[in-house]
Amino acid sequence: MRAVKIKLGKRSYDVVIGHDLFTAAASFLQKGDYSKKALLVTDSTVNRLYADKLADALREAGFALAKIVVPSGEEAKSLAWAEKIYDTAIEGKLDRQSPFIALGGGVPGDLTGFAAATYMRGVPFIQIPTTLLAQVDASVGGKVAVNHPAGKNMIGAFHQPDAVFADLASLQSLSPRDYASGLAEIVKTACLEGGGRLDFLAEQAGRIEERDEEVLSSLVAGACAYKAKIVEDDERETGVRMFLNLGHTYGHAIETEGGFSLYTHGEAVSIGLRGALLLSGEFASLAPQVTTKVSALLEKFHLPLKASGIDPERAYQALWHDKKAVDEKLRWVLLKKPGDALISKDIPLLKVREVLAGLVENGKH
Amino acid sequence: MRAVKIKLGKRSYDVVIGHDLFTAAASFLQKGDYSKKALLVTDSTVNRLYADKLADALREAGFALAKIVVPSGEEAKSLAWAEKIYDTAIEGKLDRQSPFIALGGGVPGDLTGFAAATYMRGVPFIQIPTTLLAQVDASVGGKVAVNHPAGKNMIGAFHQPDAVFADLASLQSLSPRDYASGLAEIVKTACLEGGGRLDFLAEQAGRIEERDEEVLSSLVAGACAYKAKIVEDDERETGVRMFLNLGHTYGHAIETEGGFSLYTHGEAVSIGLRGALLLSGEFASLAPQVTTKVSALLEKFHLPLKASGIDPERAYQALWHDKKAVDEKLRWVLLKKPGDALISKDIPLLKVREVLAGLVENGKH
Repeated sequence: MRAVKIKLGKRSYDVVIGHDLFTAAASFLQKGDYSKKALLVTDSTVNRLYADKLADALREAGFALAKIVVPSGEEAKSLAWAEKIYDTAIEGKLDRQSPFIALGGGVPGDLTGFAAATYMRGVPFIQIPTTLLAQVDASVGGKVAVNHPAGKNMIGAFHQPDAVFADLASLQSLSPRDYASGLAEIVKTACLEGGGRLDFLAEQAGRIEERDEEVLSSLVAGACAYKAKIVEDDERETGVRMFLNLGHTYGHAIETEGGFSLYTHGEAVSIGLRGALLLSGEFASLAPQVTTKVSALLEKFHLPLKASGIDPERAYQALWHDKKAVDEKLRWVLLKKPGDALISKDIPLLKVREVLAGLVENGKH
Repeated sequence: MRAVKIKLGKRSYDVVIGHDLFTAAASFLQKGDYSKKALLVTDSTVNRLYADKLADALREAGFALAKIVVPSGEEAKSLAWAEKIYDTAIEGKLDRQSPFIALGGGVPGDLTGFAAATYMRGVPFIQIPTTLLAQVDASVGGKVAVNHPAGKNMIGAFHQPDAVFADLASLQSLSPRDYASGLAEIVKTACLEGGGRLDFLAEQAGRIEERDEEVLSSLVAGACAYKAKIVEDDERETGVRMFLNLGHTYGHAIETEGGFSLYTHGEAVSIGLRGALLLSGEFASLAPQVTTKVSALLEKFHLPLKASGIDPERAYQALWHDKKAVDEKLRWVLLKKPGDALISKDIPLLKVREVLAGLVENGKH
């Protein structure tokens, strides 16, 4: 068991990484200043695998549990499901000190976090991420949200959890596609971090594919620690935190146009990352070898470099719903070299379209 | 024109009080770091009276306006209307630096504030309150929310405005009932403030009834300054800020059971304040003369002391949805004497029921 501390003043918390963390989570809640009524939110897949075990640990620690199971998949990240959480919480008489516990991937995490941020103007939030993507991405930073038909995460808040418990054992049951989805964010982080992280991933690719737990523990802790540094500097994303969106501008557009189901978040980020590096080659003097190296790594992790089944014109329109756009300018995160990113508002739209066309044509899905 | 400064570190802002403030608001926005696309939210009543004038001032200052008119009355404070605001904002391509401007009473204010708190995880918020209640209450503290069928303000956030413009001229067009509703919060504040404020209100009752602008300016500035002191100490309502809920426990229950339409917020607070003072007489040694004095003041301002048309048992059940309840204990704000409040979790439920029965029986509406 190891812990990464996220230092945000009064809102500081630990990301605990290890095995069999349900008892640790229950004991954390038992010791804290919480009401004895808690809410557990999970999705139908994770419910079958782990919810009973967690519920038992919580009941043993003295908690009465209200529980809601949302459908697996992005469609649960909606205001309609947030309303069902409010209804369940009110019915169960949950109060301002009742912990809302999210068990599962990014969808239950973001949805539960949004409900926790807004129920009675904010209640305690505990995350137990069971996917690699949620462990390396959603567990640090307090971004919570639901989707709008016009765009991902359009309705949300910043609401830091009281604690995160990243259980490595749960990564063994992930589908290959979901596992790869997490690796896409790890590759993106390595691009931002520099200092040989891309080479480390290439060297360790075999152990990573085997889901070796030692290397997983180090990947999760490393990604959380890197993200923590950025978030500690810029909690509300007014500056450097925007770098974390590398690959997400094209990525979100592709994910949106695929109806949040054709491509996983990580797959869309993989394609979007390649697009951002291609733009970086032209507008930030990124050496083409870096793009080649990153593309090879993504392919090794069974991630796509192109999308099929996406209409380029509609994807282009979806770019404009990006939350980073201000006064009708898209803000791009570009890479000068690994470890050195910048924000550009001046990429010619013709070029934006051209690279996008290359990303969505002739692709294999 | 005077200004009350609300000191909340990086989230500090001014409540500007005066006449013809639409140009001042537009000029404030023009000088700030905002996108040139703004959203204006108002209700159907205020829309007829003032929206064009404000829209003209904003357009003159260079803003393109998306506008949404919500129905007058509490039913607009719903998630469904928040969704319509999101839709309008997305359609108008509003971005992270687009100001959301609320023109009207507490309903457009709370609803717009909630939408501003959650659209793209938070955008700038400007309040132009046109009712006495909104000017003295909602303009300080950053509490924003929508209602849930089971209770008022159950879904919300803390989101401080960038500025508040309280236009005194708009108070002249209020209905007597809406005007009285604001006076109820002023009486409540006087109870908490002590130091002769209740006597001052009694002495000035004539001028207050006439809506004398000099006395109104002093009442609005005084109430905002008092509330500012409390909120500066306790932005997230974990301590002293709870005192501001004096009268609101019974009040919210009566307002809820009246379907948010039988009684205005201020009328419900008036009845709830009397209830809280009756409990204070028994459990906080409040002198009965204070209750008599406050009741007389409320009556002088044409506010009710009792409710009719409310089922006592259902109102009792509604008490338990109060956001201040923790671990199934109601938390009451009681008054020891004017200027000296306390929180009690130990009022016997039999007594809670008895006082409530007295508030809702034989009442005149």
